[in-house]
Amino acid sequence: MPVFKAPLRDMRFVLDDVFQAEQLWARLPALSEHVSRDVVDAILEEAAKINENLIFPLNRSGDEEGAQFNAGEVTTPKGFKEAFREYGDGGWIGLGADPRWGGAGMPKMVTVMTEEILFAANPSFALYPLLGIGAALAMAHHAGDELNERYLPKIYSGEWSGTMCLTEPHAGTDLGIIKTKAVPEADGSYSITGTKIFITGGEHDLASNIVHLVLAKLPDAPAGSKGISLFLVPKFLVNEDGSVGERNPVSAGNIEHKMGIKASATCVMNFDGAKGWLVGEINQGLAAMFVMMNYERLSMGLQGIGASEVAYQNAAQYAKDRMQGRSGTGAKQPEKAADSILVHPDVRRMLLNVRAHNEAGRCFAMYVSKYLDLAKYSEDEAEKAAAADRVALMTPVAKAFLTDKAFEACVEAQQVFGGHGFIREWGMEQLVRDTRIAQIYEGTNGVQAMDLVGRKLVRNRGAYVYEYLDEVRALIAQTQSTPELATFAKATADAVERIAEVTAWITDAAARNADEVNAAAVDFLHAFGLLTYAHMWLMMAQASVDKNDGFYQDKLVVARFFFSRMLPQLYSRVDSINAGSDVLMELQPASF
Amino acid sequence: MPVFKAPLRDMRFVLDDVFQAEQLWARLPALSEHVSRDVVDAILEEAAKINENLIFPLNRSGDEEGAQFNAGEVTTPKGFKEAFREYGDGGWIGLGADPRWGGAGMPKMVTVMTEEILFAANPSFALYPLLGIGAALAMAHHAGDELNERYLPKIYSGEWSGTMCLTEPHAGTDLGIIKTKAVPEADGSYSITGTKIFITGGEHDLASNIVHLVLAKLPDAPAGSKGISLFLVPKFLVNEDGSVGERNPVSAGNIEHKMGIKASATCVMNFDGAKGWLVGEINQGLAAMFVMMNYERLSMGLQGIGASEVAYQNAAQYAKDRMQGRSGTGAKQPEKAADSILVHPDVRRMLLNVRAHNEAGRCFAMYVSKYLDLAKYSEDEAEKAAAADRVALMTPVAKAFLTDKAFEACVEAQQVFGGHGFIREWGMEQLVRDTRIAQIYEGTNGVQAMDLVGRKLVRNRGAYVYEYLDEVRALIAQTQSTPELATFAKATADAVERIAEVTAWITDAAARNADEVNAAAVDFLHAFGLLTYAHMWLMMAQASVDKNDGFYQDKLVVARFFFSRMLPQLYSRVDSINAGSDVLMELQPASF
Repeated sequence: MPVFKAPLRDMRFVLDDVFQAEQLWARLPALSEHVSRDVVDAILEEAAKINENLIFPLNRSGDEEGAQFNAGEVTTPKGFKEAFREYGDGGWIGLGADPRWGGAGMPKMVTVMTEEILFAANPSFALYPLLGIGAALAMAHHAGDELNERYLPKIYSGEWSGTMCLTEPHAGTDLGIIKTKAVPEADGSYSITGTKIFITGGEHDLASNIVHLVLAKLPDAPAGSKGISLFLVPKFLVNEDGSVGERNPVSAGNIEHKMGIKASATCVMNFDGAKGWLVGEINQGLAAMFVMMNYERLSMGLQGIGASEVAYQNAAQYAKDRMQGRSGTGAKQPEKAADSILVHPDVRRMLLNVRAHNEAGRCFAMYVSKYLDLAKYSEDEAEKAAAADRVALMTPVAKAFLTDKAFEACVEAQQVFGGHGFIREWGMEQLVRDTRIAQIYEGTNGVQAMDLVGRKLVRNRGAYVYEYLDEVRALIAQTQSTPELATFAKATADAVERIAEVTAWITDAAARNADEVNAAAVDFLHAFGLLTYAHMWLMMAQASVDKNDGFYQDKLVVARFFFSRMLPQLYSRVDSINAGSDVLMELQPASF
Repeated sequence: MPVFKAPLRDMRFVLDDVFQAEQLWARLPALSEHVSRDVVDAILEEAAKINENLIFPLNRSGDEEGAQFNAGEVTTPKGFKEAFREYGDGGWIGLGADPRWGGAGMPKMVTVMTEEILFAANPSFALYPLLGIGAALAMAHHAGDELNERYLPKIYSGEWSGTMCLTEPHAGTDLGIIKTKAVPEADGSYSITGTKIFITGGEHDLASNIVHLVLAKLPDAPAGSKGISLFLVPKFLVNEDGSVGERNPVSAGNIEHKMGIKASATCVMNFDGAKGWLVGEINQGLAAMFVMMNYERLSMGLQGIGASEVAYQNAAQYAKDRMQGRSGTGAKQPEKAADSILVHPDVRRMLLNVRAHNEAGRCFAMYVSKYLDLAKYSEDEAEKAAAADRVALMTPVAKAFLTDKAFEACVEAQQVFGGHGFIREWGMEQLVRDTRIAQIYEGTNGVQAMDLVGRKLVRNRGAYVYEYLDEVRALIAQTQSTPELATFAKATADAVERIAEVTAWITDAAARNADEVNAAAVDFLHAFGLLTYAHMWLMMAQASVDKNDGFYQDKLVVARFFFSRMLPQLYSRVDSINAGSDVLMELQPASF
């Protein structure tokens, strides 16, 4: 059975040494009164406890049992109901929510850590509260006080839960062609009819009501994505006094049988003239939903980091325990029949690949969170706007690059186990299966890359990228004369210039041929992601260089590994981009 | 449900246009009489039929049902028994075997294709006959006529099956520390006692007897790998008349619950004073077993290619059928609500990644097979010896590079399906799960890389590599002045020189520090693998350039994709190697 300890030491390093979070909180009036290092430390300790002791132990059994469907009802695996109750009662669902609706008002720089711990412990379980948080967030922005007062406190307490209903059998990425209909009723509500698929937590036994946010089209709506509205459709109608009333005609037709996250119920949802209420403006549903989706996209990155953290912890332990073969440079444990496999450079290479990604990814998630908090809480309008731009640039990177690297990391950690990695009881193969979905849902990683290169890069002729590169250049200038940091700074500087060149190349190429955007997308996302990791490692090294403690010295060792053995992949990605789109478009459709 | 058509057109291209197999067969006396293009064509047609119609349809159901264990007995999924019988009766198990033991004597260049088709159809099923073939091969080389006459014809007919029993709970890669004991008996047999794990097909209901080849140690054997002997241990003892007699005390204690290949029974085998017979010489067991393992290592590469061929066929079809979004350059199917996703360059990039690997990998497997056949059948001693060296160099590449790329390919093809790729019924996630094992078993891919760089490269100071590079240089010289091939030849030449440099670098570095071998291993395997793919694509392009048919012109298109968008990865691999082992060895064990 796998083990998991929340990486609190590393989280505190990122929070304190790299980002000096307390100084940031102190200067933001919306946070300064209730957010302090002591409060946050207590939250982290409690998050570690509930996740390590209550939620993580349900991860393997949840995979074996899976969510079960029977005649419209979904049964979650043993222990999920009690754990969800305790999680809700502990205030975890509302940790980052507005105190007005019962939340604790913690910044993203805090919830980014508790979410990573939750995803590490049990990604299937994590999705139940997470979807509620996402739905509540979209509502808080768009639903108006009457709906919010009625629904949000119960979602944040875990009494009720939430979903997002976007995808239809014929329409996933392309929501413009959805068919679900919303017909206005005399009482101001709408009658919703249609079928949605891939609805996470669409039906389950964890909460007494489920609040669906549903994309649908009015009868006279314009074609395409400009004709989509968002509706709130509860499983049970809510009485005037806030109690649960009669059943609304919305039900699960089935659940999917999946590769992983088997304890998460992925439902086919049938809306059969269900009563719904408009959220936000008519035909502005996509924009309202995107509030939720951007939030969830960073969360998917955290799912990745959480999984690869567990993968690392177990693979490192296995490598230390497993006695096989001898070191190439002579026996290291001559008193035993074999050395531990940690003597083999290739085993270390695999472990360091995973670790260099985990630590950079965790730092990067905090980096994005810092800008999310500035975009929300800063009182300096210029700082706020710049932060929002940085979030816009980095959200697809946080979703796609972190999950692509996390999947690779889980596969690599599984490989450390040899044959045992393929056996279910060790838990490594579950990490691989569960993490695979993070590359797919909430917009596939290809769609994220298209968002990055199309909307964020080409549409403003590289401005977001160039602003970011200036930030990295400033750090390079600060670090390049420190002897221990000079080679890292130089490697980062080379990467910055290569990204600057290819950003210009893509901008020009796209102006000549729109296909160049999508042809470059995934390779650019990976090249750019590697640059952000270089940036994070340079920051982490800077924060460690003058400290003698072994923890900090290890950061410099892993940084050396990253810069010399991982960063070079950036250059082959750029070479692929420079090959352009023609080699992709040449083959006739019939030849595929 | 996924579909599969055996890629006969592409196989014939490799056989005829690239390798002119018939000319080769004609000049080898051992093959010239019974192997012709007509015979081989008939075999390919029949292989396509039985695999597409009988064995492939059992792949999804076999995954859902799995092999079942109950009180020492293993039940295979519905249909496996009948299919195994038909497969055996059709002569498929003995296709490449010596006619003396009932085989058809077909060269490896033929069985490489039928095995790919079988693995594509159903990898779990494939392992049952395959292990028998491997065991029989080791026996044919080492067991002597008496044992062979008794056992081989029944293995080749599928009446009985075979296993290889190497791994023990504490000993996988490092077989020198196995504990299974063999005690000589008065009648010349041995009494075998011990526990073996991960025994593919150790118990099942497909055959009336199971012949285990077991590694064990005599009481007075030297320590380590020099003290290992090989024994034949049948499930049922065989009577003088060849009929099945009393049960031998060898039994399955359990089967493993695995990530994939769930219909293949992976058994814990308990030998409790079971009667066994020595195969080969005392203490020479590893050498005898390696005959079998080298054979199986190429087969694992074929498992990879088979899976990624199925992945490609289904992903390409899905991409053509799925209507989502619009081309960046304007609607291509304006009469419909959306274009097919094949208009998106990134979807094509994924498909072409898979296809460029499949076609190069298939060609490479044939290339290795050609040398296997020359090493076995050539009557020119120099040619025979050179071919054996080439096989030695390429076997780890065929096992590890083909399966690493195949796993990536299956993941990429799954990604084309978006959310549907994660759903079991589409079959794509099964391809990912089933293919993952090919990177692990028969020696992990890390162990293969160590074999390549340690035994094959460093031990003879690069000679095998340099001889191979000369072969590639000769092809470059032949092709570089042909206008359509010049850029391919130039890219291949650059790759050759880079591999030559890094081969010299590794040889020198290893002389100073033995850890450099393992530190370079996996990156070198991938860089070298990419060079072999470049070599294959240059050969395939040369074979296609003067032909007008669309099939051949498509080869040139995919070649352009390979050289411009995949080959550049070679350079970042070399950069990682040049970073050396220090960055891997620096971290203290306690810091992992």
